[in-house]
Amino acid sequence: MSAPYDAVDVISIKRDGGVLGDAQIDWVVDAYTRGVVADEQMAALAMAIVLNGMVPAEVAHWTAAMIASGEQMSFAELSRPTADKHSTGGVGDKITLPLAPLVAACGVAVPQLSGRGLGHTGGTLDKLESIAGWRASLTNAELMAQLEDVGAVICAAGAGLAPADKKLYALRDVTGTVESIPLIASSIMSKKIAEGTRALVLDVKVGSGAFMKDVDSARELAETMVALGTDAGVHTVALLTDMSTPLGRTAGNALEVREAVEVLAGGGPADVVELTLALAREMLAGAGVHGVDPAERLADGSAMDVWRAMITAQGGDPDASLPIARETQSVVADSEGVLTRLDALSVGVAAWRLGAGRARQGDPVQAGAGVELHAKQGEAVRAGQPLLTMHTDEPERFDRALTALDGGWSVEPGGAVDQQSPVVIQRIT
Amino acid sequence: MSAPYDAVDVISIKRDGGVLGDAQIDWVVDAYTRGVVADEQMAALAMAIVLNGMVPAEVAHWTAAMIASGEQMSFAELSRPTADKHSTGGVGDKITLPLAPLVAACGVAVPQLSGRGLGHTGGTLDKLESIAGWRASLTNAELMAQLEDVGAVICAAGAGLAPADKKLYALRDVTGTVESIPLIASSIMSKKIAEGTRALVLDVKVGSGAFMKDVDSARELAETMVALGTDAGVHTVALLTDMSTPLGRTAGNALEVREAVEVLAGGGPADVVELTLALAREMLAGAGVHGVDPAERLADGSAMDVWRAMITAQGGDPDASLPIARETQSVVADSEGVLTRLDALSVGVAAWRLGAGRARQGDPVQAGAGVELHAKQGEAVRAGQPLLTMHTDEPERFDRALTALDGGWSVEPGGAVDQQSPVVIQRIT
Repeated sequence: MSAPYDAVDVISIKRDGGVLGDAQIDWVVDAYTRGVVADEQMAALAMAIVLNGMVPAEVAHWTAAMIASGEQMSFAELSRPTADKHSTGGVGDKITLPLAPLVAACGVAVPQLSGRGLGHTGGTLDKLESIAGWRASLTNAELMAQLEDVGAVICAAGAGLAPADKKLYALRDVTGTVESIPLIASSIMSKKIAEGTRALVLDVKVGSGAFMKDVDSARELAETMVALGTDAGVHTVALLTDMSTPLGRTAGNALEVREAVEVLAGGGPADVVELTLALAREMLAGAGVHGVDPAERLADGSAMDVWRAMITAQGGDPDASLPIARETQSVVADSEGVLTRLDALSVGVAAWRLGAGRARQGDPVQAGAGVELHAKQGEAVRAGQPLLTMHTDEPERFDRALTALDGGWSVEPGGAVDQQSPVVIQRIT
Repeated sequence: MSAPYDAVDVISIKRDGGVLGDAQIDWVVDAYTRGVVADEQMAALAMAIVLNGMVPAEVAHWTAAMIASGEQMSFAELSRPTADKHSTGGVGDKITLPLAPLVAACGVAVPQLSGRGLGHTGGTLDKLESIAGWRASLTNAELMAQLEDVGAVICAAGAGLAPADKKLYALRDVTGTVESIPLIASSIMSKKIAEGTRALVLDVKVGSGAFMKDVDSARELAETMVALGTDAGVHTVALLTDMSTPLGRTAGNALEVREAVEVLAGGGPADVVELTLALAREMLAGAGVHGVDPAERLADGSAMDVWRAMITAQGGDPDASLPIARETQSVVADSEGVLTRLDALSVGVAAWRLGAGRARQGDPVQAGAGVELHAKQGEAVRAGQPLLTMHTDEPERFDRALTALDGGWSVEPGGAVDQQSPVVIQRIT
């Protein structure tokens, strides 16, 4: 393609608050992917987008241009319908682990192309890699075969999907241009649409531990993504879900796998079960499968069967012992009362500092590190009772984790035990 | 210096509309100059500055940080006071050529470190290089010796002055981040303050041919620069001057040298003489020299003597014939009336397209190319009278130059001959 546009002209339109045309977006995304538009030019354009926004038609075309930058997959040849889920990331968010086998057990294939964690939110692949032998990378042929045979796959997204997004995401990470609903929505949706799923459920987190701190911005992001998916022919629904306090009772890698297995065994924390079932019902509905109750598939062990087959198919041993951190240290309540607040961000940063997360792409993570919660927000605690236990292989990490936790919870003496507030805040279609 | 700050944190502050602290500015400017902060990070920061601005204290410190990135000169050892002039650039703006020798003839040394042209505005060095033998590059020792002996130097700015600005200017040029008063003002003033002049007069152009199209933004730029200079101990005055129509009767390189020599010989167009004298008076006052009338130094030939000495000192032959373009083509008035409008930008772009200017740094320019005006705005013209003549070595350039001129002038049949409007619009101290 020749260069019908000049990068400075395109940047200047957005800088001055204008609307980019389809051909301009096609050109700049393609030219950036090919290295014709330089990183510094895309960084200036990204900052102009952060500050001046994009109208819906621009976001839609930007997403389409990123999809067009790479390959597009199709699951049309599978014997079952497909459904996919994306979470915007939270603390203790292990939902993908029980959800994918559960939905597969209900007759819908789940191709869950996932990522690694960065910062205080964990990554699904990091969690699964705490299982001995499990591998994240599959060829497209292996992915298809496993989807047909097992029904569920959680694996790394191939480099071929939306390479423009991959390059742009790395650039935004170092240029302070992550915080933009058009850029976040197009980044997520370009990969999901390119992946070729028929139905998609978005779990948009709201609260201190989430990227979106308030309901209004989370709703705007959700509505933007639902519109992008719907326009692209993907049946898309979003749930706004609470991330002011951690999901479940663990934040870490092996710690969360253990909790996910508890859910698949019919137990597990109520909030994790609630959200897993809510998302499963949306995925089944989106895939056109009705009359199946996912709660029964948890109870009858069929979801666990798919989990075991899914882990085994990717080289993992579902019966292997999970790694345990070498050192633990607990934090106790110094008074009796109700745990009225347990902050998601504080716990997430503590888990990260204990070694469960990474600061930069490519850094290693500890399989056993993380935070185990002995009390959830709204529960009664006694003086001297352990509130949480920190896990790490490197005890010198405890101090910085404690600093992150400082001020992260409140125990109120006269407080009444609260009913746990619902995880799902709003459904957006 | 270690890295006390993170580039993303600094970018995010400005993205979110905050004010950067002195230490953050010091760090980011120094780290960018050393390559620790990457081009894409500075591009994102520059766009955030374009869109969210800077408070005066930030602009002042940003300027100081750019000065600190390189060497600082001093003219304190000269036997005469110094004064310098900076123009923000216009069409036909050859004022530096007669001005520097004129002010020197009045007893004030003029170290005029100049640049080359880019786009539709010409560069002083490009103009002087049409004089056979003349060289733009001087060592600091040569510059000092010539200032002492001749009193006037027009030469290229060394790479040692404000290298941060040099790097940032090139980045802004390709990232659509030129249009920012804080960034423009700090770029200009960092070089001028580092140069070490005692007095500075700023010629801030307003109108179609100028960077600033309206008086309000030009005034804001002028006030910002005057404040920066004053704070740094430089006696600084700005004149807002009209650039809605070209200065003088020529736009080009050798064509403008010829006109400058006419002014030095006591003739030349009234507007060029007016602006040269206005700027000379400001420079003399700023340098503390009173009681000298520069108009007399034009009339008595002493300014011309300094011009000849200045050109000779830099290897040029003041008596050499100036280059003449191989081809010319004239445009005639098709009706009788008054030339009520002759647009500066149209003439500037035409001269550029004829070969007088360059699109990219390092491109060659034609010495003889440009536009010669036979009528000025406000003058009466007859049907069939030549309005202007285009000059170029490459006749295939005429068509694109004519396109630029199309619509660039108006002849009104019943119009009365206007008094020429004053060049100087406002004085800002």
